[in-house]
Amino acid sequence: MHLYRPEEECGIFGIFNHPEASNLTYLGLYALQHRGQEACGIVSSDGENLHTHKAMGLVADVFGDQNTFSKLPGSAAIGHVRYSTAGSSVIKNTQPIMVEYSRGAIAVAHDGNIVNAQLIRSELEAYGSIFQTSMDTEIIVHLLATARDDSLVERITTALERIEGAYCLLFLTESRMIAVRDPYGFRPLCIGKLGQSYVVASESCALDLIEAELIRELEPGEMIVIDKNGMSSCMPWKKVKPQPCIFEFVYFARPDSFIFGKNVYMVRKQMGRQLAREHGIEADLVIAVPDSGVPAAMGYAEEAGLPFELGLIRNHYVGRTFIEPQQSIRHFGVKIKLNPVREILKGKRVVIIDDSIVRGTTSRKIVKMVRNAGASEVHMRISSPPTSYPCYYGIDTPNRKELISASHSIDEIRKYITADTLGYLSHEGLTEAVGEENSSYCTACFSGDYPIRFQNMGRNPQLDLFEKEYIK
Amino acid sequence: MHLYRPEEECGIFGIFNHPEASNLTYLGLYALQHRGQEACGIVSSDGENLHTHKAMGLVADVFGDQNTFSKLPGSAAIGHVRYSTAGSSVIKNTQPIMVEYSRGAIAVAHDGNIVNAQLIRSELEAYGSIFQTSMDTEIIVHLLATARDDSLVERITTALERIEGAYCLLFLTESRMIAVRDPYGFRPLCIGKLGQSYVVASESCALDLIEAELIRELEPGEMIVIDKNGMSSCMPWKKVKPQPCIFEFVYFARPDSFIFGKNVYMVRKQMGRQLAREHGIEADLVIAVPDSGVPAAMGYAEEAGLPFELGLIRNHYVGRTFIEPQQSIRHFGVKIKLNPVREILKGKRVVIIDDSIVRGTTSRKIVKMVRNAGASEVHMRISSPPTSYPCYYGIDTPNRKELISASHSIDEIRKYITADTLGYLSHEGLTEAVGEENSSYCTACFSGDYPIRFQNMGRNPQLDLFEKEYIK
Amino acid sequence: MHLYRPEEECGIFGIFNHPEASNLTYLGLYALQHRGQEACGIVSSDGENLHTHKAMGLVADVFGDQNTFSKLPGSAAIGHVRYSTAGSSVIKNTQPIMVEYSRGAIAVAHDGNIVNAQLIRSELEAYGSIFQTSMDTEIIVHLLATARDDSLVERITTALERIEGAYCLLFLTESRMIAVRDPYGFRPLCIGKLGQSYVVASESCALDLIEAELIRELEPGEMIVIDKNGMSSCMPWKKVKPQPCIFEFVYFARPDSFIFGKNVYMVRKQMGRQLAREHGIEADLVIAVPDSGVPAAMGYAEEAGLPFELGLIRNHYVGRTFIEPQQSIRHFGVKIKLNPVREILKGKRVVIIDDSIVRGTTSRKIVKMVRNAGASEVHMRISSPPTSYPCYYGIDTPNRKELISASHSIDEIRKYITADTLGYLSHEGLTEAVGEENSSYCTACFSGDYPIRFQNMGRNPQLDLFEKEYIK
Amino acid sequence: MHLYRPEEECGIFGIFNHPEASNLTYLGLYALQHRGQEACGIVSSDGENLHTHKAMGLVADVFGDQNTFSKLPGSAAIGHVRYSTAGSSVIKNTQPIMVEYSRGAIAVAHDGNIVNAQLIRSELEAYGSIFQTSMDTEIIVHLLATARDDSLVERITTALERIEGAYCLLFLTESRMIAVRDPYGFRPLCIGKLGQSYVVASESCALDLIEAELIRELEPGEMIVIDKNGMSSCMPWKKVKPQPCIFEFVYFARPDSFIFGKNVYMVRKQMGRQLAREHGIEADLVIAVPDSGVPAAMGYAEEAGLPFELGLIRNHYVGRTFIEPQQSIRHFGVKIKLNPVREILKGKRVVIIDDSIVRGTTSRKIVKMVRNAGASEVHMRISSPPTSYPCYYGIDTPNRKELISASHSIDEIRKYITADTLGYLSHEGLTEAVGEENSSYCTACFSGDYPIRFQNMGRNPQLDLFEKEYIK
Repeated sequence: MHLYRPEEECGIFGIFNHPEASNLTYLGLYALQHRGQEACGIVSSDGENLHTHKAMGLVADVFGDQNTFSKLPGSAAIGHVRYSTAGSSVIKNTQPIMVEYSRGAIAVAHDGNIVNAQLIRSELEAYGSIFQTSMDTEIIVHLLATARDDSLVERITTALERIEGAYCLLFLTESRMIAVRDPYGFRPLCIGKLGQSYVVASESCALDLIEAELIRELEPGEMIVIDKNGMSSCMPWKKVKPQPCIFEFVYFARPDSFIFGKNVYMVRKQMGRQLAREHGIEADLVIAVPDSGVPAAMGYAEEAGLPFELGLIRNHYVGRTFIEPQQSIRHFGVKIKLNPVREILKGKRVVIIDDSIVRGTTSRKIVKMVRNAGASEVHMRISSPPTSYPCYYGIDTPNRKELISASHSIDEIRKYITADTLGYLSHEGLTEAVGEENSSYCTACFSGDYPIRFQNMGRNPQLDLFEKEYIK
Repeated sequence: MHLYRPEEECGIFGIFNHPEASNLTYLGLYALQHRGQEACGIVSSDGENLHTHKAMGLVADVFGDQNTFSKLPGSAAIGHVRYSTAGSSVIKNTQPIMVEYSRGAIAVAHDGNIVNAQLIRSELEAYGSIFQTSMDTEIIVHLLATARDDSLVERITTALERIEGAYCLLFLTESRMIAVRDPYGFRPLCIGKLGQSYVVASESCALDLIEAELIRELEPGEMIVIDKNGMSSCMPWKKVKPQPCIFEFVYFARPDSFIFGKNVYMVRKQMGRQLAREHGIEADLVIAVPDSGVPAAMGYAEEAGLPFELGLIRNHYVGRTFIEPQQSIRHFGVKIKLNPVREILKGKRVVIIDDSIVRGTTSRKIVKMVRNAGASEVHMRISSPPTSYPCYYGIDTPNRKELISASHSIDEIRKYITADTLGYLSHEGLTEAVGEENSSYCTACFSGDYPIRFQNMGRNPQLDLFEKEYIK
Repeated sequence: MHLYRPEEECGIFGIFNHPEASNLTYLGLYALQHRGQEACGIVSSDGENLHTHKAMGLVADVFGDQNTFSKLPGSAAIGHVRYSTAGSSVIKNTQPIMVEYSRGAIAVAHDGNIVNAQLIRSELEAYGSIFQTSMDTEIIVHLLATARDDSLVERITTALERIEGAYCLLFLTESRMIAVRDPYGFRPLCIGKLGQSYVVASESCALDLIEAELIRELEPGEMIVIDKNGMSSCMPWKKVKPQPCIFEFVYFARPDSFIFGKNVYMVRKQMGRQLAREHGIEADLVIAVPDSGVPAAMGYAEEAGLPFELGLIRNHYVGRTFIEPQQSIRHFGVKIKLNPVREILKGKRVVIIDDSIVRGTTSRKIVKMVRNAGASEVHMRISSPPTSYPCYYGIDTPNRKELISASHSIDEIRKYITADTLGYLSHEGLTEAVGEENSSYCTACFSGDYPIRFQNMGRNPQLDLFEKEYIK
Repeated sequence: MHLYRPEEECGIFGIFNHPEASNLTYLGLYALQHRGQEACGIVSSDGENLHTHKAMGLVADVFGDQNTFSKLPGSAAIGHVRYSTAGSSVIKNTQPIMVEYSRGAIAVAHDGNIVNAQLIRSELEAYGSIFQTSMDTEIIVHLLATARDDSLVERITTALERIEGAYCLLFLTESRMIAVRDPYGFRPLCIGKLGQSYVVASESCALDLIEAELIRELEPGEMIVIDKNGMSSCMPWKKVKPQPCIFEFVYFARPDSFIFGKNVYMVRKQMGRQLAREHGIEADLVIAVPDSGVPAAMGYAEEAGLPFELGLIRNHYVGRTFIEPQQSIRHFGVKIKLNPVREILKGKRVVIIDDSIVRGTTSRKIVKMVRNAGASEVHMRISSPPTSYPCYYGIDTPNRKELISASHSIDEIRKYITADTLGYLSHEGLTEAVGEENSSYCTACFSGDYPIRFQNMGRNPQLDLFEKEYIK
């Protein structure tokens, strides 16, 4: 049987009514590459047919041959980048998914995670549907194909009524592009304009790259339909309290993006300042674990009145598939990404800022590396609360057993990572840094307060690993 | 006829007497990837035969398949990364070059540029030598093959007596590894130890990655021979005044490397401080053109007492081959690498720090980008003097006609890049930042004072482009 | 919308209960390569999962890498070779088709052509089925997936009740292999034994290659189920009068195969003898259009008492994809396959034997080629009646407009091909050569007597080209 | 050190002064594919530069992409096909070899084998020449590069004076094509005309394909120079008694070719007739081992008054690389190529005609196969004398230890291959079949009379395997 494979963090991009639609989608995906490095794809429409090109690999590799774009003609296109996850990574599990059904051709790109995917899939298969992939996104197209409604908008409405979980979706048909953000609004999605073209993207940095103007973010529960008559919007599903994912601010989004009403860099710097207020310590300098820790480290240094230095240099050619050398020299893992600058660290009391600690193994290696480079004291500061609960809405966290803070006290963690002191940003400090007016973020990974109940989730193997007592 | 193709900036790495020699060479090249992204290769020796694997592409791609290493057996290996240059980039022009001649097999990897390559090549061809590549490095192996000396060390000595220019070389035979740094010492080369193994690398960051200990840098004019009896050193060529390349500090080397007796990050920060002293201005914040401008920007901000901010976010997936989209949207060039953070820049008087200005086109785009993001004033500061002369010793500068500062005054450049003010670090300021004791760097790219005369250069087409009056 | 793409001539092979099932399937497909050169594939079962490898190309290319077989583990396997047809040749239209549906995984390989494919497909799509390919074979798996019967045998029975046309099918599940020959028995299918293993193949030559023993041919309308308990047989569909395809004897099958109760070579030689009796002529020698014309030519020569010579030499490296050179030299088409031997033909009265004339263009080139080589007279003899009607049961004939004998008299054809005389084997002569006891072959391509009516065929674009008056 | 690799049977083709030179060379190589299936290549000249494309594989695969020809521009081209030999088959050992030396660019294609290659190579390397391949053909270009003569014709004359062995050569420079046949004339080479273009090919069948007219064969020791002024000829080397290879008639050439003044098919048929006269036997029918045995079998049947039947059917998709399945089923070797027709052979006394017996293992399998198919008697007849001596002039025979007739009597061979009787064509019968006027063929493989002495052959490892007593 299929292994259930949740769609993890992804990036989506679409453009309608531009003579170089697939080219611009390529650029948009390029700007969203941080949301998924495993695979990518584009589907374009020339008004009569959909055309597709998908492959494992980075955007620049998959679309590196200029000829590719001649095979993606048309004035509308949607694209997708997928996060790197181990194991079941195969070419057929790439997006956008493109199918032909009784009403014609449709393509869909999905960022998020469907919680009740397995249950719906079993039901559809029992009635004779044949699935081609192990992606839960394919459920959506089968729900569309079996929906009896006349219009596509109604069929999408009917189909998504069945879906529980996090989803930002982009649909493309021969003549329309449709964007949907789920009622909780877990993941970001924004819309912009480039001349007479409409552009939809996971983050505003993709609009910046192609010099499109940001109109606004989609509302939670909003469906936007773009066709030759322009853009229209509706909110066809039951309203719920929005729960945007706070981890997008902590780690996932690009610092130059504007999401959930704020600039990510500014929020991160604010987290660093708050962290300095909560966990100040006497020290000589502040360094960051690059790159996600840099803005918080700068905020911390500013607030603490300490110099900020580039004490760890990142190898800029990492970030792409790195084949580890053989067993005996595998321990170079962290060194391949980071190298300490001995001249800066030698004899100094160093504060290191990182955004989170997952298993603790990387932090342990970094603390040791900094100490070996000559630091006299090493103080680890984390710009978010302990990550004690796995995410079911699209962030690729390991299951609870692997999360060090699910089973260890802060002092135990400190000992494990061999730091002199360790401080996490408090839950209150985090929400304050993000801004009080947004008190309703999804913070399930810190708190265990999951916005969606799990009664309908079927045979999710991830859940089997998840001890029931942790679901509050 | 062949088009003369100078070897440009490259990185070289070698290890002798380690059971996983090719694996560690792969890691070493990975750390040196910034010195060349176009192509790479490794030659290993198993004591009886040399084995080779070379291809166009990044290290992680070319050696991405773990099986590759089983085809590179043996306890010694040398590797090479080559810079991306346009046009004649073909697979056969990759290094290390490996040949079999009457004395057996030998491989060579070269960082630098041979000034009299064309002349020697013509001579060798006249006597019947057949060249397989258009790389000037191939001249060295033909000189070795025709040298009548008995020992390899003598043959290398004889061969290199003919060579003028910049060269760091690594030779590998079945039983020996030989490292050479040219008498001027233009390019850096260091030697380290990892257990019982000797390691040679262009920069110390490659030693750090594999946790080898830096012994020292090679002296200008030094040849080091490593074999089963250990390491020996000699200085067989006529001594000249060393002229290490100051541009390695300005731009080319990695900030965590230790070269020419100093840490690069520290030197760059010092350049920034000196720049602030020379060209201070009233402003609200300092930003850098990432990544090479960051240390200088931090030094400037510190000295000027201004906040340093990440006003330009770099897309970390650039740095690899990026296929430009078609003509009409090609102007996205700079945006693909950098995105401004509007929230930081809006309404602010901004100082931008970059390491150099070449053609001026990129600076112009950056100034406009920052102004479009809302900056009220834009002050450009450059952490080196105007680059007015091309380099013949391995740095890939354009010819003089394309260097904006060769033909324009500083104020003309300021107007062209549309900055409110523009300041370059002075020549004196640069050498002071580097440290007075090293008063004898090669600064030809700033001054036109070329250490090697050109009388013997033959048909170098690069020289044809170079007006005689500029050679002082 | 999909262009309807009929499955044309193909070859299928399966083996159950052999430790090297996929290896032997590869050999079996190799022997059946003449039935399809465009694409091929194998699906194997290891008892728990199905494994698949398919690609465009010849068997020896697609399975040329020995590692392939390690990815096709298990003791049962089925394979498929597909004929080369223009245009819609794409990788996804390769067989066996493998899907997962509510009852598990199933693979199917199909030789033949489904006449009512488009109709059923439209119906299935209306109820929400999503098709992944444009092959009509996919209909069968959707019918299986929507069938409500409990057992697989019943589901197959139900599904095939809907299907009209020609089909030899091989199904593979985790634990069973099922072979089906349609009630008309259009295409050949035989079963054999190799030790404890059962083998099914389109032609007996595939059994010969792996040294399996031929048990018997499947009966028209027979379904054979092979599992760990051995082999069982049933005839679940309504009985009709069998109509095996006489063109398999004329051209399609391999001469060493035993099909429809006879050896193909012997039948072809008999056709040649009969042809000599019907269309004898004074001549010096008999030559064949190799290779399919050779046995008939030998029979003709024997009966006529004339020497048989190899007057046309075939290039044995043709038979695989041949990329035609550019326009101006494209007329070399026939020369690439055949070269006349001048020394044999010079000054001679030559009888040329071919199996059929389709468009007439090739015959015309051959006649000219033989005459240019010096023949004084050229007499063309065809070992079958004029091919005046297209085939709807799997032979890749062009549509009726392109068949020269559909619109031209024999004398007109003779003039077109520039032969001195032209004689076709009579319809009676053909059936006599095949053997009177088999008076009920499908001879629709000669006679227009189609065994299956077309009322349900839906939007078959092939039919649109087919003038109604020709359907008797 | 290099393993010495003799150039084996090959095919060469060249054309001068045709707008589609590389296209026609592709066709010419296609017709010569039987002379080499391992690798192929084309070098074209556009008057200013040479262009090259070479790869492992069949002509139709290597040049399968029409775009290839746009990279081979110009009105002159030469091409090469290389025979499949085990082991050292690597891409760099493909031809034509193309180099640039002091006099410009030159390419060379070679059919034959240089006997003193190793000796000359060692000498050249001692003077500093660096070899890139292990092909002995490369020696020729180094001899050209070191020759001091002024004109190319003189340099070729000087270079080839040093060469001993068999060679047909085609040289191509920017402005000339030069064809050379060695003084012994071991291998065939002919020249033809196509309009205003000159064409050179190993066999006339390549001229036929492109509809070029055969002018004549090159004389042994002739050099033909073709340039914009037309064609000129000279005989610059010392005259020796010609010794064309009789094995070209027996096996290697295509039956439709005209070589050494005769048609190959006619000669083979004559061999069959002579064989019947020498070794007639009472039997029911004659079959051939296809395809090379067919003409002789037809001659034998004619002379013996027996029917000729296709008792062994060849799989026409063999002849290309066939990856053998794993160990346990490897014994299918011969069955993959040939399948007996039971209905023909059952109960019959069968004469099998083959062209030669090398190791005896294949003949043994064929005899068994025919007997298993029901033959009551099996009489093997060979249309050439026993092959007891290896070839040093280009035919890929195994070394003497593996040749069954070098160490076994005819009756021992008969027993080994399990035939009822065995008869070889006599040496006199062979030369009579070829024609008395050509009494001076090289028959070294049958007689051990090698035309060239071996005193200068150096370290040829093939010779080490060759016991001295066999050199008469």
